[in-house]
Amino acid sequence: MLGEHVDGWDRLVARSPEEHTRRGIDVRIRTKVTAIDLEAREVHWRERDGGRDGVEAYDFLALTTGAHDLRPDLPGLDLGFPVFTPRQAMRLGDALPPVQRALIVGGGYIGMEMAEAMRDRGAAVTLINRSERLLHRTFDPDMSERVAAAAREIGIELELGAAATSIAGQDGGCTVTTERGSFAGDIAILGLGSAPSVDLAREAGVPLGETGAIAVDHAQRTSIPGVYAAGDCAEAWDLIAERWRNLHLGTIANKAGRVAGLNIGAESLAQQPMQTLPGVAGTTILRLGSHEISRTGLTMAEAGEAGIDVRAETIEGRQIAGYMPGSSPIHVKLIAETGSGRVVGGQIIGQQGAGKRIDVVATAVSLGLTVQQLVDLDLAYAPPFSGAWDPVQTAGRVLL
Amino acid sequence: MLGEHVDGWDRLVARSPEEHTRRGIDVRIRTKVTAIDLEAREVHWRERDGGRDGVEAYDFLALTTGAHDLRPDLPGLDLGFPVFTPRQAMRLGDALPPVQRALIVGGGYIGMEMAEAMRDRGAAVTLINRSERLLHRTFDPDMSERVAAAAREIGIELELGAAATSIAGQDGGCTVTTERGSFAGDIAILGLGSAPSVDLAREAGVPLGETGAIAVDHAQRTSIPGVYAAGDCAEAWDLIAERWRNLHLGTIANKAGRVAGLNIGAESLAQQPMQTLPGVAGTTILRLGSHEISRTGLTMAEAGEAGIDVRAETIEGRQIAGYMPGSSPIHVKLIAETGSGRVVGGQIIGQQGAGKRIDVVATAVSLGLTVQQLVDLDLAYAPPFSGAWDPVQTAGRVLL
Repeated sequence: MLGEHVDGWDRLVARSPEEHTRRGIDVRIRTKVTAIDLEAREVHWRERDGGRDGVEAYDFLALTTGAHDLRPDLPGLDLGFPVFTPRQAMRLGDALPPVQRALIVGGGYIGMEMAEAMRDRGAAVTLINRSERLLHRTFDPDMSERVAAAAREIGIELELGAAATSIAGQDGGCTVTTERGSFAGDIAILGLGSAPSVDLAREAGVPLGETGAIAVDHAQRTSIPGVYAAGDCAEAWDLIAERWRNLHLGTIANKAGRVAGLNIGAESLAQQPMQTLPGVAGTTILRLGSHEISRTGLTMAEAGEAGIDVRAETIEGRQIAGYMPGSSPIHVKLIAETGSGRVVGGQIIGQQGAGKRIDVVATAVSLGLTVQQLVDLDLAYAPPFSGAWDPVQTAGRVLL
Repeated sequence: MLGEHVDGWDRLVARSPEEHTRRGIDVRIRTKVTAIDLEAREVHWRERDGGRDGVEAYDFLALTTGAHDLRPDLPGLDLGFPVFTPRQAMRLGDALPPVQRALIVGGGYIGMEMAEAMRDRGAAVTLINRSERLLHRTFDPDMSERVAAAAREIGIELELGAAATSIAGQDGGCTVTTERGSFAGDIAILGLGSAPSVDLAREAGVPLGETGAIAVDHAQRTSIPGVYAAGDCAEAWDLIAERWRNLHLGTIANKAGRVAGLNIGAESLAQQPMQTLPGVAGTTILRLGSHEISRTGLTMAEAGEAGIDVRAETIEGRQIAGYMPGSSPIHVKLIAETGSGRVVGGQIIGQQGAGKRIDVVATAVSLGLTVQQLVDLDLAYAPPFSGAWDPVQTAGRVLL
């Protein structure tokens, strides 16, 4: 939409309310659940825009309330456009004046995607980020540096280490003031992070975990009988750090939702809920111009927090055979536990064909493979696709 | 070279003889080993083109004699151009007249690559294959059909089930006669398969395995003390069928050669040879125009031969999110053992970004993952790269 890659809203919706209805699912859109009565097994609802309200009894309840964008206490925040949901992005797209310069506040995934989208629309882009690093929670400093270089290479101006203190509007434009100076543009787009939407669950008395998201087990059950939770509002088990986390990723939401649905189906037939989601690795991938950026497992910092002593190597290889046209550098960082040699994380940046290579590392970290086992894998090779050693394995060899 | 993707021979050579020499390795090119005396631990050699000959003593011997193209007893075979080695390909490239129509004899990997290369040079291409199917040893019939459709789509004319009986030359052109008729062209390029080059080993008394290649253990040792073997001339352990095989793949040769080299190094220091190659999955990948074709593990037929009862599903998905530009179909076939659910093989065909997805399946089959474990993997998702469920996992879900 914003990047003008997708025609419109409808194409993003996997199934319309009508399609759900045809499958025998009673879908109520524009209807807000206002409260849950766990004792009575009832939800209270109200239609938006002054419509009806009522109470619905349930046998099983799935809490899939998702997440929302963070709205810090920043003067003028309402002058910026948050783009956490597709609907927000569409609203922004509809409202967009011709933009000479876009200010992006936030250097996480959404900030980066917005920076690219506005660049694709022909705007000059300034990305303002509180941290000195881009994607600083999910990448190590050395790889963050490469992400920043990639962003600059596609023409995104970076203002790092610049915490926004206010947003002001004037003459159809706006100014973002930071601790490091003020930046003027036609629009300010916000990517300030997200938090699980758990008000409803909390108020009803569904226990939350330490992360602030709804606590669940591997079958996506909360501790309240009959109540399941899945997606951005729920915790997920980190297979590598071996702790519960709250990650806002579509892959995890899809898998957890499927588990919850199948288990509710089983329970409703008086069967044991058998489906489980063993856990997640926190695998992500991002396109930035022609750059592909991906990661999985733990960063060095996360490994430290988890009490795992690690070593890491970053190699520069070629994403395809060096003598082929289109061959370009790929940087692969591999992190492994000292002693055991267990792979605990990986980070990749490179051109076409680089990013999805993280999947093999994601598989390795999820299964507790050692670096040696990763190096021994029989991966696909032909010159248009790879060198005889996949760069991921080359990183493993160096780490060995 | 032939496909005009690569400038010349030199670019294909990872290290020149001079570079090896600088690393302290005594390289003798244009020198043929004529015999090995295992008792005396000596090799007899002779320089090509009437040069010197001599005998060299060894402490350790690595047999890395590779493979050669099969040369069946076919009248006129010498009129065709084999292209098993880069040197043969270069020779063909040098000899190439302007080609209106190229005949390719053989529908394996080399035949397919040659068909594409000649098409890229602007020639009309007829591919003549004995089997009714392309890549019939490594793909199941349903996926072979899709490979054939891809070949036809890029303009390669297929003559399948047409065993060549002779090749004749006339007027600078040639005719390939088959059981199903004769085909005329300017040149006949041969991709008739390959066999391990083991004459030297056999004559010396180094035991061969049932496959006809040199028998080795996981440390790449033959049964003769001090004699190692690696690469196309040696067997490799099939992790899934649990038997020794002889596969001619650069990935396997690289890994096995590294193991042999490191172990010889250890043995020469009176250490135990500790490096092993646990085994292989037979993972391959092929580009055909814009099509990417890959496979790993066992086909249905190979599973049958190995006594493994299997079920399979083939799904049609999208290689990236369906609403993104560039989204196109991907076909993923997944084969799993009945009962245990262990993934034993996979085959993929699709457009850009499809092929290397086989690596996750290769990892799964190598480690004995179940379909459920494959579906549970936390793989990378963003719309430019994948749907929220990777097509490989969608195939797994259908198979479940």
